[in-house]
Amino acid sequence: MYTLPELIKNFGDNLSQYSWPDTPKSLYDPVRYILDIGGKRIRPAMVLVGYNLYKDDLGEPFEAAMAVEVFHNFSLLHDDIMDDADLRRGKMATHIKFDVNAAILSGDVMLIYVYRLLEKYSLQLGSLMPLMTQTAIEVCEGQQLDIDFENSDDVSVDDYIKMITNKTAVLISCALQMGAIIGEASEEDQFHLYSFGKNLGIAFQIQDDWLDCFGEQAQVGKRIGGDILQNKKTYIYLKSLMLLSSAQADRLRLLYSDTLDIEEEAKIGEVLQLFRAAHVGVHCEELKLVYQQLAFSHLDAVTVSDDKKSVLRTFAEVLLGRES
Amino acid sequence: MYTLPELIKNFGDNLSQYSWPDTPKSLYDPVRYILDIGGKRIRPAMVLVGYNLYKDDLGEPFEAAMAVEVFHNFSLLHDDIMDDADLRRGKMATHIKFDVNAAILSGDVMLIYVYRLLEKYSLQLGSLMPLMTQTAIEVCEGQQLDIDFENSDDVSVDDYIKMITNKTAVLISCALQMGAIIGEASEEDQFHLYSFGKNLGIAFQIQDDWLDCFGEQAQVGKRIGGDILQNKKTYIYLKSLMLLSSAQADRLRLLYSDTLDIEEEAKIGEVLQLFRAAHVGVHCEELKLVYQQLAFSHLDAVTVSDDKKSVLRTFAEVLLGRES
Repeated sequence: MYTLPELIKNFGDNLSQYSWPDTPKSLYDPVRYILDIGGKRIRPAMVLVGYNLYKDDLGEPFEAAMAVEVFHNFSLLHDDIMDDADLRRGKMATHIKFDVNAAILSGDVMLIYVYRLLEKYSLQLGSLMPLMTQTAIEVCEGQQLDIDFENSDDVSVDDYIKMITNKTAVLISCALQMGAIIGEASEEDQFHLYSFGKNLGIAFQIQDDWLDCFGEQAQVGKRIGGDILQNKKTYIYLKSLMLLSSAQADRLRLLYSDTLDIEEEAKIGEVLQLFRAAHVGVHCEELKLVYQQLAFSHLDAVTVSDDKKSVLRTFAEVLLGRES
Repeated sequence: MYTLPELIKNFGDNLSQYSWPDTPKSLYDPVRYILDIGGKRIRPAMVLVGYNLYKDDLGEPFEAAMAVEVFHNFSLLHDDIMDDADLRRGKMATHIKFDVNAAILSGDVMLIYVYRLLEKYSLQLGSLMPLMTQTAIEVCEGQQLDIDFENSDDVSVDDYIKMITNKTAVLISCALQMGAIIGEASEEDQFHLYSFGKNLGIAFQIQDDWLDCFGEQAQVGKRIGGDILQNKKTYIYLKSLMLLSSAQADRLRLLYSDTLDIEEEAKIGEVLQLFRAAHVGVHCEELKLVYQQLAFSHLDAVTVSDDKKSVLRTFAEVLLGRES
């Protein structure tokens, strides 16, 4: 039994030993760069956690954990080009450090290496590969929905949940299930771990969207109101439209239409005022709680001892700010 | 036994029946677009040929053929962004028809679908997946070498052969071997078919580079001298440097350095004059012949009847301009 920090450290040590090909240097240097500039390594650690529920060693699941981390960084690399983001984890984004073409092609080779890394698991390939592929497709679809929603007036709460499920939650689920598959868990346990990860990811994203509006800049680590400036159709926005008077809702829609000549800070201020007027916070908390409870009920159904599950329980509690 | 045109038609019919997801529309429309605007479908047909050497039906290998065609079109889609190419097959390139972000993300989902398409072959997954992955990595590396060589003064003939092998030849080899794997060919036959495809691809590329300089525009289907304008370090260029006087070689290097203030047509004209002065044609023909003979010797070693091999023999002869 390892703690989450131990598993993250174990992964990080193995990651730093992993050797990418030397040549072509211009293809693999951007890969080394994005993997070196950090990140919390939560997703690969979830593979180790999923495995560690059933088996004690840690060598076996490394390549699967690496596949998940390489996939995650591939998606960041291409997303940063698409979002025209100059910074990643406080460092230059890869397409700025190198160039856009390097970031495209190096991202491509990372996506291919996800499958190279899974080759080791010849006995479980028939389960691991379709799971990784389905997840990867969903992440791309989630990214596309996120882009589409910025310019759409016709987004429902269901659409929003679907988008954050695909863009954020399924990779955490996939990581946990991969670890469980390699650990030879039953299909029922695999299902419950996948569902725990998915619902936890959704609850986390609802909270994260809230913090983007009402968090402390130091705590959130990014500019407050970024989602508002990008006209992101979060649950906060969608639910506020339902709660506000028709005149207020029209104003909120207008503010998100980018047709007003208004300063960024003024836009953020007015939108936040409308969110407060809608008293949307209690609704966000309620929706987060629904997914949080779903997550824990799936964790309860996993057939390993409570002692073993404590890593995941503690992780979820810290993530969702319920730690005592 | 089917002829190559019959196999191409069979693939095209199945391709047009293939249904991509409806939503997100903005993700899958670019995929449908690039696959619809044509192409010779030689690579997917090679999967069917490889299979048809051993088995008579054609339904079984379709998804593998589709995987090869989807991979090929994914690479064209991303290459066109990197090369800033406005046209593809005489139509608008995908990133022009849609936008760069759409072309990046739709390319990504195509690369993932390559693996989705291979899931069907559960029994052969352990062979097909590593072959596809190794090939995909080599194609990326070949594209990177091609980019690197444009700005390098230090390219050897071996480097050039390695680049065209990766960028062009291995996908043809991979297609043939995939068909053979699904057709349950022996590993020896798989090896010979792979090697036939690889050497044929190299011979073809040497010829294609020659036609880019000395072909008829109508026959080649693209502007004569395009490689010269891009300072491509082809065998013609590299061998000419060895054959020319030191003063002529210096001039050729200078013309490829982009430091001269010279019109495009004048540059092409002067470079072609130097190639002619070097009498490099006979050397190109000789190198092409080496790979051509290697290709045919591997085809000879495949343990099926000459009658069955005739599809590949005729294809190679037509491709290399040896048809009587």
